Amino acid sequence: MDSTIGLSITAGFSAIAFAGYLISDILKRRVDTPRMVEVSEAIQKGAMTYLNRQYKTIAAFTLLLAVLLAWSLGYLTALTFTLGAVLSAAAGYIGMNVSVRANVRTAQAARSGLGEALKVAFSGGMVMGMSVTGIGLLGVCLLYWLTGDPKQIVGFGFGTALVALFARVGGGIYTKAADMGADLVGKVEVGIPEDDPRNPAVIADQVGDNVGDVAGMGADVFESYVCTLIASMLIGAITYGKPGVAFPLIVQAAGIVSSILATFLVRVKGDKPKDSIKRGMLTAGFVITVISCILSWIFFGGLKVFYATLTGIVTLILFALITEHYTFYDRRPVQTVAEASKTGVATNILSGLALGMESTALPVLVVCLAIIFSYVLVGLYGIAMSAIGFLSMTAMVVAMDSYGPIVDNASGIAEMTGSEPEIRRVTDTLDSLGNTTKAICKSFAIGAAALAAIALFSAYIEETGLEAINIAKPSVSVGVFIGGMLTFLFCSFLLRAVGKAAFQMIGEVRRQFREIKGLMTGKSKPDYARCVDISTRSALKGLIAPGALSIIAPVAVGFTLGAEAVAGLFLGIIASGFPLALFLAHTGTAWDNAKKYIEKGNLGGKGSETHAAAVVGDTVGDPFKDTAGPSLNILMDIIGTVALLLATSFITYALFA
Amino acid sequence: MDSTIGLSITAGFSAIAFAGYLISDILKRRVDTPRMVEVSEAIQKGAMTYLNRQYKTIAAFTLLLAVLLAWSLGYLTALTFTLGAVLSAAAGYIGMNVSVRANVRTAQAARSGLGEALKVAFSGGMVMGMSVTGIGLLGVCLLYWLTGDPKQIVGFGFGTALVALFARVGGGIYTKAADMGADLVGKVEVGIPEDDPRNPAVIADQVGDNVGDVAGMGADVFESYVCTLIASMLIGAITYGKPGVAFPLIVQAAGIVSSILATFLVRVKGDKPKDSIKRGMLTAGFVITVISCILSWIFFGGLKVFYATLTGIVTLILFALITEHYTFYDRRPVQTVAEASKTGVATNILSGLALGMESTALPVLVVCLAIIFSYVLVGLYGIAMSAIGFLSMTAMVVAMDSYGPIVDNASGIAEMTGSEPEIRRVTDTLDSLGNTTKAICKSFAIGAAALAAIALFSAYIEETGLEAINIAKPSVSVGVFIGGMLTFLFCSFLLRAVGKAAFQMIGEVRRQFREIKGLMTGKSKPDYARCVDISTRSALKGLIAPGALSIIAPVAVGFTLGAEAVAGLFLGIIASGFPLALFLAHTGTAWDNAKKYIEKGNLGGKGSETHAAAVVGDTVGDPFKDTAGPSLNILMDIIGTVALLLATSFITYALFA
Repeated sequence: MDSTIGLSITAGFSAIAFAGYLISDILKRRVDTPRMVEVSEAIQKGAMTYLNRQYKTIAAFTLLLAVLLAWSLGYLTALTFTLGAVLSAAAGYIGMNVSVRANVRTAQAARSGLGEALKVAFSGGMVMGMSVTGIGLLGVCLLYWLTGDPKQIVGFGFGTALVALFARVGGGIYTKAADMGADLVGKVEVGIPEDDPRNPAVIADQVGDNVGDVAGMGADVFESYVCTLIASMLIGAITYGKPGVAFPLIVQAAGIVSSILATFLVRVKGDKPKDSIKRGMLTAGFVITVISCILSWIFFGGLKVFYATLTGIVTLILFALITEHYTFYDRRPVQTVAEASKTGVATNILSGLALGMESTALPVLVVCLAIIFSYVLVGLYGIAMSAIGFLSMTAMVVAMDSYGPIVDNASGIAEMTGSEPEIRRVTDTLDSLGNTTKAICKSFAIGAAALAAIALFSAYIEETGLEAINIAKPSVSVGVFIGGMLTFLFCSFLLRAVGKAAFQMIGEVRRQFREIKGLMTGKSKPDYARCVDISTRSALKGLIAPGALSIIAPVAVGFTLGAEAVAGLFLGIIASGFPLALFLAHTGTAWDNAKKYIEKGNLGGKGSETHAAAVVGDTVGDPFKDTAGPSLNILMDIIGTVALLLATSFITYALFA
Repeated sequence: MDSTIGLSITAGFSAIAFAGYLISDILKRRVDTPRMVEVSEAIQKGAMTYLNRQYKTIAAFTLLLAVLLAWSLGYLTALTFTLGAVLSAAAGYIGMNVSVRANVRTAQAARSGLGEALKVAFSGGMVMGMSVTGIGLLGVCLLYWLTGDPKQIVGFGFGTALVALFARVGGGIYTKAADMGADLVGKVEVGIPEDDPRNPAVIADQVGDNVGDVAGMGADVFESYVCTLIASMLIGAITYGKPGVAFPLIVQAAGIVSSILATFLVRVKGDKPKDSIKRGMLTAGFVITVISCILSWIFFGGLKVFYATLTGIVTLILFALITEHYTFYDRRPVQTVAEASKTGVATNILSGLALGMESTALPVLVVCLAIIFSYVLVGLYGIAMSAIGFLSMTAMVVAMDSYGPIVDNASGIAEMTGSEPEIRRVTDTLDSLGNTTKAICKSFAIGAAALAAIALFSAYIEETGLEAINIAKPSVSVGVFIGGMLTFLFCSFLLRAVGKAAFQMIGEVRRQFREIKGLMTGKSKPDYARCVDISTRSALKGLIAPGALSIIAPVAVGFTLGAEAVAGLFLGIIASGFPLALFLAHTGTAWDNAKKYIEKGNLGGKGSETHAAAVVGDTVGDPFKDTAGPSLNILMDIIGTVALLLATSFITYALFA
């Protein structure tokens, strides 16, 4: 089996090497429009400033928790925990540094046509995809190689979850404060177009796309990726020994290789970038399926484990189709929301909420079927392997997602620098595809987090030896109820933080329009930095409460009601958090696309009453889909890593176990 | 113990007798304003027409299910089931028949001052309170007396739950379709005041208050009341034998007696009707506490069971305080929502949602503490008894709640008939108190349903003998996940049904304003009946899907994944349904009261931009607090009764148990 570990480590290094190749390929492109360079540098500076300050906050928390872990669980756990945090931060750092450079180069490449621009943007996204999977796989493999025991790697998972929590929550607050501030004053009150350079919040808005959708999403998926690996290795070690540990690693290695191959397919020139990306996805999926089929035969002498893995891949495809159905503007559901806007804001809001609530049913059912099916095949290991299958396409999906903010930025830069119409047509085409892919990636991230949580839950059960966790015990059912409620409380913190931050941002943008003379005529420049600063401070302030809540809750329940109650808590969080996250993501996206559907000239088009109603829905949906919804992903998983780490302590020290 | 049953039966009859006394007292008051008689008769006719058609639909479902039950579980179950449905319908019929007569008499009594009007309105509400508790207790006692086995009464509980489901869902859709139709066209588009007789939907709106808040709420609480009794008797029989069965009955008998006493206190004249009602509540609570303390000593030779009961009473008080904090307009949270309306609709909506999500935390924690505390005292029986304690004040709370629509109607009738300003001042004072009490009753109904569900869950565990329901089994955790999602799907059906119904209503009201000449000048009368008919048809159509879902889901899960998975499903529904119901109720009420706070002259008052934003929030909140939220109550309990009934069948016939 050592050769498997060796192969997986090689795959991890290949990913990093490929990322390096893509980076050098992107950076050697020169940007020859000085105005573009200027805007791009402002975005870079803002993003880096934020990321540095965010990492400082995270570093403080990490240090504190590392000391606590060293004291309670030993140095090794503290060390792996710190490594997890550092590597996750590194992946985010690399990915974002590239995306804030790829954006302007995409705008530049748009001069040479759609194919070139797509190539740059997708390469930029793939850097994040490769960083996440490469660094994730490498970290897990190396730690396993050093310790020989998956249990020792749980701390690593906790470290990645901690960074993800802060990156998601902080990034989510940042981006929406900037977005709402820019839109509500700029577009609604002053009446200037989106991404207009006169808008003081425009740079903060562009920065937000990067810290939210690139760094935040990357850390989120990194965490799900690592935690699923660890959980499946834990279960694998117990049920199948070494092959059980090695198989998930090699499947993920295959995922990396197939994604590298697929990247070249996305580069083919063509008129329809959507088809190009789809071709890449399908190829990657096909290659992974074939490789894991062969490997399952080699490792286990049969195809049962392969079928479990395949279940995960099929789940991913179904997730994409369901998301498409509920959130795309060429489908009935979103058009219904658009039509409801005809009778005003209230009906737009209610119709969106009803859509979002309905849209939770199929994804949850699909996951439930996957659980049952894969469990019948090979027990708890099957459940974990279906999560691995789902996540085997991580590099491609993350690339697709990070592609979104890059082209969004490119389109914004083109707009801000007053580029030629042809360039803007290219960047706009890419941007509208970015909106499509983003919706699917959101669902992917939720599904990945839920599956990771379920895998962690299975591992927790195997680990604690609590073979029977009895919900007939009130401590367990109370755990479930508290879990069910926590997700709502957590969301309320986030919505409130965005509200407060947006309120400040609106005040500042209004102030600048009022006080800076010649701003509207373009004679003076706005103070972009002030807006960037407001978003930064609000985000850092807003992440404390939800961050603390998600770590304190399992610890408090564990040490009072015991290890079984924590299992209940965990289950309650998944049971309400999974549909709540889907609801928030789908509702927000549907409102967004209902607005876009109207803007395409339907139902009265831009400027109509109907459009005005849809704009309100879109604004309400912003923190739904980009702050509260995605942050729930991390909540589901962080409880799992804390629970796994402290399982034995809960059993020993609980007050009323 | 037979004497206890005798006493309880006597209490049940006393309640019915007292209701009769109150009815005769109300009916003997003459209404001498012909215009008032006319309006009141239109409301009566509309309400009765709807109730009759609703009962026809329910009768069809009841018959179908009775045949299925007779075939699968025997005639006795089918019979008790039918009896439960019939008695619940009877309680609703009586209560609503009185409330649609008490409304006009309250308006009439307002001539003699606040004291008289309060007396009539509260008496009218107390008829519903006495019907619910009297008929509920009597039904359970008689069936127990006849069969001697609480298990045989489960069918009765299912019957009440079925009627409650239809009454809540149907009433909720009816009332909000009418309300939104009346408001969105009348107040917003045409600009006529609320309850203006020129509005074609005004009668449907008044009818809606009765079928939603009186009949719907009554059936809801009736079901919680009966199911909690049955669950506690089931557990009591297993743990304490006959005294265990008799104690919950006698506590509820004491509840009835103390509520009758307290009614006389509400009759005392005074300037502040709020203090008067509070005095009544506190007296009733005190009497119940003393009686159950003495009885606990007599029955069990100790106070442990009493303490468990007391836990429930304390929980009720805390529920009221928490609701007050989050939903009253003289408190910070609602004022924050009002202030958020200054920056527009989007911030009003987000602020309300954040408030609602936050407001779920304390009630859930309080219930969790009550569960743990009462379980530590006397095991599962303690949990059931704390639910009984919570519900011991049912008569008073239902009276307070039914009082709401009566005074709301009275105020509407006064407005429609152009009564003197003094009369309208009296009815408006009573109405504003009604809004306060309604919010608390909503929380009460949610808490009661959740506690009933938890008691049913405990009974299910005792009954099935599934001493260990293992969430480590995927079938169980899948059950939890499906349960967590079902509440969202269920809500989406309801929001959509209200949306569709409101859409039709808006069309019809607009049509009448357009086509009926002289409507605005008051020369022609609108066609009220058409609007009543639209609400009726929409409500009956809208209740099919959620009704079917809530019965089919547990059956489908039970016969595929087995009895343990049903326990998981049940737990998942409570875990997400309880906070979701609180969220919907509190958010809706907070938006409503934020609007009222502004209408009192704050933040620009009526007609300001801020007010316009708050009106949209209020409209979105309508189906939250009056349709989807309350309907979740029934969903939580109906699964429990179905599960209890079919427990043994699930164990025997499940496909993959």
